[in-house]
Amino acid sequence: MSNSFYSSCAILYEGETDAVLQCITDKLQAETQKAALDTHTWLLVLSAALLFFMQAGFAVLCAGCVRKKNVQNTMLKNLLDACGAALAWYTTGYAFAFGQPGSGETSFIGTGGFLYIGDVDAAYWFFQYAFSATAVTIVAGTLAERCQMTAYLLYSLFLTGFVYPMSARAMWSSHGFLSAKQPDPLGGIGAIDFAGSGVVHITGGMTALIAAKILGARKGRFYDSKGSPLSKPKHFPGHSIALQLMGTMMLWFGWYGFNPGSALLLGVENSGPIAALAAINTSISGASGAITAMFTELYLEERRTGGLSFNLTMAMNGLLSGLVAVTASCALIEPWAAGLIGMTAGWIYVAGSSLLIRWRIDDAVDAIPVHLFSGVWGMIATGLFTAPTRILTAFGSSDHVGWFYSLGRGEVDATLLGNQILAVLFLLAWPLGTITPFFLWLNYMKWLRSDTLEELVGLDMAYHVNAPTVLRDDDVDEKALAELEERKHKKRTGQEGAP
Amino acid sequence: MSNSFYSSCAILYEGETDAVLQCITDKLQAETQKAALDTHTWLLVLSAALLFFMQAGFAVLCAGCVRKKNVQNTMLKNLLDACGAALAWYTTGYAFAFGQPGSGETSFIGTGGFLYIGDVDAAYWFFQYAFSATAVTIVAGTLAERCQMTAYLLYSLFLTGFVYPMSARAMWSSHGFLSAKQPDPLGGIGAIDFAGSGVVHITGGMTALIAAKILGARKGRFYDSKGSPLSKPKHFPGHSIALQLMGTMMLWFGWYGFNPGSALLLGVENSGPIAALAAINTSISGASGAITAMFTELYLEERRTGGLSFNLTMAMNGLLSGLVAVTASCALIEPWAAGLIGMTAGWIYVAGSSLLIRWRIDDAVDAIPVHLFSGVWGMIATGLFTAPTRILTAFGSSDHVGWFYSLGRGEVDATLLGNQILAVLFLLAWPLGTITPFFLWLNYMKWLRSDTLEELVGLDMAYHVNAPTVLRDDDVDEKALAELEERKHKKRTGQEGAP
Amino acid sequence: MSNSFYSSCAILYEGETDAVLQCITDKLQAETQKAALDTHTWLLVLSAALLFFMQAGFAVLCAGCVRKKNVQNTMLKNLLDACGAALAWYTTGYAFAFGQPGSGETSFIGTGGFLYIGDVDAAYWFFQYAFSATAVTIVAGTLAERCQMTAYLLYSLFLTGFVYPMSARAMWSSHGFLSAKQPDPLGGIGAIDFAGSGVVHITGGMTALIAAKILGARKGRFYDSKGSPLSKPKHFPGHSIALQLMGTMMLWFGWYGFNPGSALLLGVENSGPIAALAAINTSISGASGAITAMFTELYLEERRTGGLSFNLTMAMNGLLSGLVAVTASCALIEPWAAGLIGMTAGWIYVAGSSLLIRWRIDDAVDAIPVHLFSGVWGMIATGLFTAPTRILTAFGSSDHVGWFYSLGRGEVDATLLGNQILAVLFLLAWPLGTITPFFLWLNYMKWLRSDTLEELVGLDMAYHVNAPTVLRDDDVDEKALAELEERKHKKRTGQEGAP
Repeated sequence: MSNSFYSSCAILYEGETDAVLQCITDKLQAETQKAALDTHTWLLVLSAALLFFMQAGFAVLCAGCVRKKNVQNTMLKNLLDACGAALAWYTTGYAFAFGQPGSGETSFIGTGGFLYIGDVDAAYWFFQYAFSATAVTIVAGTLAERCQMTAYLLYSLFLTGFVYPMSARAMWSSHGFLSAKQPDPLGGIGAIDFAGSGVVHITGGMTALIAAKILGARKGRFYDSKGSPLSKPKHFPGHSIALQLMGTMMLWFGWYGFNPGSALLLGVENSGPIAALAAINTSISGASGAITAMFTELYLEERRTGGLSFNLTMAMNGLLSGLVAVTASCALIEPWAAGLIGMTAGWIYVAGSSLLIRWRIDDAVDAIPVHLFSGVWGMIATGLFTAPTRILTAFGSSDHVGWFYSLGRGEVDATLLGNQILAVLFLLAWPLGTITPFFLWLNYMKWLRSDTLEELVGLDMAYHVNAPTVLRDDDVDEKALAELEERKHKKRTGQEGAP
Repeated sequence: MSNSFYSSCAILYEGETDAVLQCITDKLQAETQKAALDTHTWLLVLSAALLFFMQAGFAVLCAGCVRKKNVQNTMLKNLLDACGAALAWYTTGYAFAFGQPGSGETSFIGTGGFLYIGDVDAAYWFFQYAFSATAVTIVAGTLAERCQMTAYLLYSLFLTGFVYPMSARAMWSSHGFLSAKQPDPLGGIGAIDFAGSGVVHITGGMTALIAAKILGARKGRFYDSKGSPLSKPKHFPGHSIALQLMGTMMLWFGWYGFNPGSALLLGVENSGPIAALAAINTSISGASGAITAMFTELYLEERRTGGLSFNLTMAMNGLLSGLVAVTASCALIEPWAAGLIGMTAGWIYVAGSSLLIRWRIDDAVDAIPVHLFSGVWGMIATGLFTAPTRILTAFGSSDHVGWFYSLGRGEVDATLLGNQILAVLFLLAWPLGTITPFFLWLNYMKWLRSDTLEELVGLDMAYHVNAPTVLRDDDVDEKALAELEERKHKKRTGQEGAP
Repeated sequence: MSNSFYSSCAILYEGETDAVLQCITDKLQAETQKAALDTHTWLLVLSAALLFFMQAGFAVLCAGCVRKKNVQNTMLKNLLDACGAALAWYTTGYAFAFGQPGSGETSFIGTGGFLYIGDVDAAYWFFQYAFSATAVTIVAGTLAERCQMTAYLLYSLFLTGFVYPMSARAMWSSHGFLSAKQPDPLGGIGAIDFAGSGVVHITGGMTALIAAKILGARKGRFYDSKGSPLSKPKHFPGHSIALQLMGTMMLWFGWYGFNPGSALLLGVENSGPIAALAAINTSISGASGAITAMFTELYLEERRTGGLSFNLTMAMNGLLSGLVAVTASCALIEPWAAGLIGMTAGWIYVAGSSLLIRWRIDDAVDAIPVHLFSGVWGMIATGLFTAPTRILTAFGSSDHVGWFYSLGRGEVDATLLGNQILAVLFLLAWPLGTITPFFLWLNYMKWLRSDTLEELVGLDMAYHVNAPTVLRDDDVDEKALAELEERKHKKRTGQEGAP
């Protein structure tokens, strides 16, 4: 042993047995703690990598959900929002979310750590970056097939640079007014969002809802070419369910970074078993969501038409809804509760998806019911199902537990449930107040919506020079294409004529 | 240091130097062990996540191997079996496999831990769930293009809820009659299946064989429309070798969770180097399998036709065969043996694949030769090649080693080899005895096989309402499609006429 | 506690307090170190698995970049080079690169560890295998659509079995003449290539350049059928930008194994924070590269044609260039420097890609600008931006730092920069001297280039018997196909006529 603790302490405190013993003990204890910390840092990096893989999953899923003429555009947006998130998180996002304004106080916004300057925990930064990139990419699918590149790029920076960080700060930082981690949490417990049903999915989903509302539906989806409402909305089937399913399974895989990885942020010593429980509940809730949504739709379809049909989209989005819903509570509940949460999420998805259509809100990938509706349910479910033993392990106190357990104890303590509802209201209100004016401004500037010609031709042909004609969709409107080419030509000629 | 071991022990045992020292030592030792245990728990969760990614790999591989008209159906089955496995493993699977019936006794079936109730090790549960999901999904490809959804769903639950758990119990639990981990193992060593060539791949592959036999071949594969045998079987090429290859590479990646991850189950302190050796042998055996199978086929093809052709399917399935075969022994053999095992697996695949055709057993993805035949070979190879130093590190004894090493020692101790053969016989017999009546029953109930029309039209059109027409295969039989639509229509009208 | 250190030491040294204390301390310290080492071994295996996933990423990317008629051939090459690398690394690669020739001396080539014989560190072997497989697969894309299988297979073995190991030895082994890890490094610091901008990417990229030069361009790319140069090169668009983008995102994910994982090779105790910084810089440089390249091209395109176009290929290859460039320095620089490195890499890619076209060098996936040009830039950037605090943490000395920091200190110490330039020269010269004659020999033997007919028909039809006709590209030259079939037929008949 090159560097013996015994020798160094024995030399330092020669003859004083007690001092030597204390010296050795402290050194050994410090060594063990240092090693554990290093391991945790590594695990955080690896979990973040898994979680980052969800970027690929979303890209593939969205690609499958759109028509062939918009595949490239959609995937590029998915790629660029991961890039934009990295730069925005670096510039302001991390600082606003987790920058320190002093110690122990509640504050709405951070003011240190811009551009990675100052005392920044690298692994924490990286893990939180991957989260922020997830929030931003949720919206890509909803807006697909009709949103300009410029709008999407600006939105990405705005969300990860400013809006999302505030939500993360409120819920997760030690300074957040709703955070369970602050010194004096609300009601003694704060609001709990273990891995982001609220911070990531409500924020992303709510943004998608606002944006879809302002952006409007795709041409021909709910209205005919004269603007009269269609008696039955037109379905725009994605060009490849194989890609959609592949993306869905990639996301499921990435969720095992998302949920178990969050156990590392609790600051407890033995996070492994907590992570394992999170993984189990993630599996059970996702599975329940998939099966519930698919069979519910099967039953409804049978009642409607008399035919049996196994609806893939229901299975896939039911799965994702179950995963989203369990994310807030996955380390705090028993597996039976995960089953119930997933099942309910499956129903919420089925209902939410048809509600959106009734409201004539056009969501190309159904990200709104999956992420927003199930995210809200996940936050509330945490207030209902959080188990005493689990919250004790994870947060060191079981004074306030899920409402159902509280009722079981003969109490009516709804502190946690109340905090969860408050958190939901905040997480809905904050993007509503910030994203709405932002998208209205984009719309006013005419940067938001692709024009009709571009939409008919498809955004690939409209925005991407390389779009090879072999990929041209059956769906492409040839007349519109000719017109667009003509317009482009005129524009160029006109410019050449100008000085 | 906020919580000094020195201080707390010095206060507790003031003045008694020996007692203080013992107190400190015990605390430090416990701390180190706790940290190591936590790390192992985490590594198990991460390995399980990698291993779970094989679900995505199988889905993509199967999608590539089927005709376009069955892609959605196949992928949905792959998604749903992962969901079904989660629920079945939660309900009964884990309990039957690893539930404790008392201590130290051999028992055929577990009786505790249903619904995650009682003392369950979360990380172990999750890792074993991912294994069970792998076993069930092996079968999806074989049955593709002609199996009803209902049958597939029921089968998934039956396999992961009952059949597979018994195999896992026998081989891997501390109560299994063949297990190397039980207190008094068979012949002093038990049978060794390090990461599941037997438990996972033989079980899955044998199930595939039984199911394929009962289900029968796809229409037109071996017989013409009048039922006369074709002089030459018709080849149904998959619609995308790109997807097949992508899936194959995803599987290879996932295998690095499957094989190295299993080192964590050995219960030894320093499992890292064992995992690394497992990873190396996995790589070498897979590579040997791919190259052997491809060049063997190249040679045979050249002899048959005089032309040179690099057969992708041979390379891909040779790879998978090499991976399957080395799974049982990957931590127990030297890399040269991994090379030989993979090479042999490559030959076994080439021979097995053509044998199946000769037997007129229709396997859409060749899962039977890959998983069953190579799985059997892997179990036997463990009895031949297990190296003394490796088994000593992994199992703490080298009394019984691979037969070739035993011969080298001048002994003829075939204990391990004998146990391996016994294990193979059990692993073949158990599904034979349980899966056979189950599939016969499904068949009797008319729940097993899609009807001819559905098969001709393709299962996507037949079972999935969303199947967009743009995905329609060149292969779709238009007449059959019209007939099916007619029938569906009549059924609905008839039903509407009924009360 | 079953195995108490206190008891065993107390018994051993009964009554001698000091000896007991020393015994206990040493045992505890050894235990902690052993646990940390085991954790590191595990992390190395997991990082290597992530890094291995880049094989899948490259395969999918290449598949997307080629025309439909060459997809299978390209993907098979990607699969086989991973297999070939495993066997070549096992046979000679590891030994040449890291085999020990004695202690402390500089030596050009290793002479021990062939066939995994002798004292080999398993996890290190596996991690380095994954690196070597990356280097070899870089070349697959460049040579796509016109290279014979035989040539590619031989090249794979030659590169991973001989050429690459020498580069790795020089730069990374403790015996390498440029290595920062050898006892007496060049200039007191050696050349730094943290995770392989040089060893992996320059080696792969330079090989691609040499091979592309000798192999020549695809038919019709720069010359018409009579050999006259085209006024404007013909663009051969890949058949699926969706696959290309998916592959790109898979690579980005794998890079989080590549770069952070390399922190484990530093041999420092607390590598976690170093890995986390590497992950952050990887993200920022990649993102900067993508955005810079895309907007630069947007601007240039606007100047050229007056139209706006978001070029996906620029975004994707800009990303990859940023990732390649930061690989050498990712743990040694501040995030702002990562941003600058990525931005510059974006410009280098844009310029390099058009330079290649001007030089009439045909690179089907632009691997040369991505890996070679950005790799060179990455090595040099390390000499410019390496930060004192970072190199101190990673290498234990900050005597020589990046040139910009050195200037800031008022010195003009360009030792590190000089070493980096020297390393670049070596890494360019070594493949130039070995790969060039090898490819010239392949060419001389007529094993290198597919003949014209095969190229026109597509390599899938030419080399792979299973190529289903449904995958036939619009691009297939029907006349050439008929001619090829005719030739094959004649060959077979001729052979049958022979004895």
